[in-house]
Amino acid sequence: MANDDLRALIRTIPDFPKPGIQFRDITTLLLSPTGLATAVERMVAAVDGPVDLVAGIEARGFLFAAALAVPLKAGVLLIRKDGKLPGATIAEDYALEYGQDRIAIHADACAPGARVLLIDDLIATGGTARAAVRLLRKAGATVTQARFLVDLPDLGGADALRAEDIRVDALVSFPGH
Amino acid sequence: MANDDLRALIRTIPDFPKPGIQFRDITTLLLSPTGLATAVERMVAAVDGPVDLVAGIEARGFLFAAALAVPLKAGVLLIRKDGKLPGATIAEDYALEYGQDRIAIHADACAPGARVLLIDDLIATGGTARAAVRLLRKAGATVTQARFLVDLPDLGGADALRAEDIRVDALVSFPGH
Repeated sequence: MANDDLRALIRTIPDFPKPGIQFRDITTLLLSPTGLATAVERMVAAVDGPVDLVAGIEARGFLFAAALAVPLKAGVLLIRKDGKLPGATIAEDYALEYGQDRIAIHADACAPGARVLLIDDLIATGGTARAAVRLLRKAGATVTQARFLVDLPDLGGADALRAEDIRVDALVSFPGH
Repeated sequence: MANDDLRALIRTIPDFPKPGIQFRDITTLLLSPTGLATAVERMVAAVDGPVDLVAGIEARGFLFAAALAVPLKAGVLLIRKDGKLPGATIAEDYALEYGQDRIAIHADACAPGARVLLIDDLIATGGTARAAVRLLRKAGATVTQARFLVDLPDLGGADALRAEDIRVDALVSFPGH
């Protein structure tokens, strides 16, 4: 299966969540056993060097975090919306189009120097991913790479992450956003 | 690694999300590469017969859905809070302690007769899991088994699922709730 076939499994839904947005819906890829297995296998193959923890961003990032962590012999670190984690947390704010949001990790989740791979299903403007990198680095993690299923390159998130010394790879790209 | 060792990796946080609740926090198990790999391997081993789709309940169920689906050669079907899925959905209400909540799946996610395995991290009262079974069956799925990492048996959810002809298995049990 080529990456173009993976791309063909992703459905585009117009005007979600609001008019003018072309939503790239990965749920149709997830439903395909071959599509899912191929995506996981290629995301694993794109990882450089040993990884101690795979950090998944709530909620769709969780889908890939554990699926990648098992073959990488790593653990999973949850990056959740603020207020969802039961233990003591550290948090980071990031800007939304209107207002702001906050993500958190457990304060004791990450040993200093732990090599953390950042995972999410899709990178668009990269606001959440950059906040995740700041948060993980604040916790002492070594974060040098991020992997995504889908990149919307015209929204600039992948380039913004690269500017923070993160190697970024995505299997499928939808230019033109 | 024995199931008692898996149990020891789960941290208990008192009074979360409210006073009197002993929260069983699986994030400490997820951080352990051996704990995570063992949990996934045993959940896979506990599955009966072929499965077409693994249905994961948002958000922590997503962690195990894809990790189990890949070795089971199945796809993943997302069960999300209402309003999160971009396509046409069908939904199901369920009662909370105060009020109610609603979960949804894509209306076209599931071919009639598809064999669906239900997955979540933890079963307590089982309100969400039973709503998920109703929803999947309404969509035409054949749902006969559910797998969890943790069961809180005194809250009755596993027995309530069994009463709906679901085989239920959990790796770790915390009686006394």
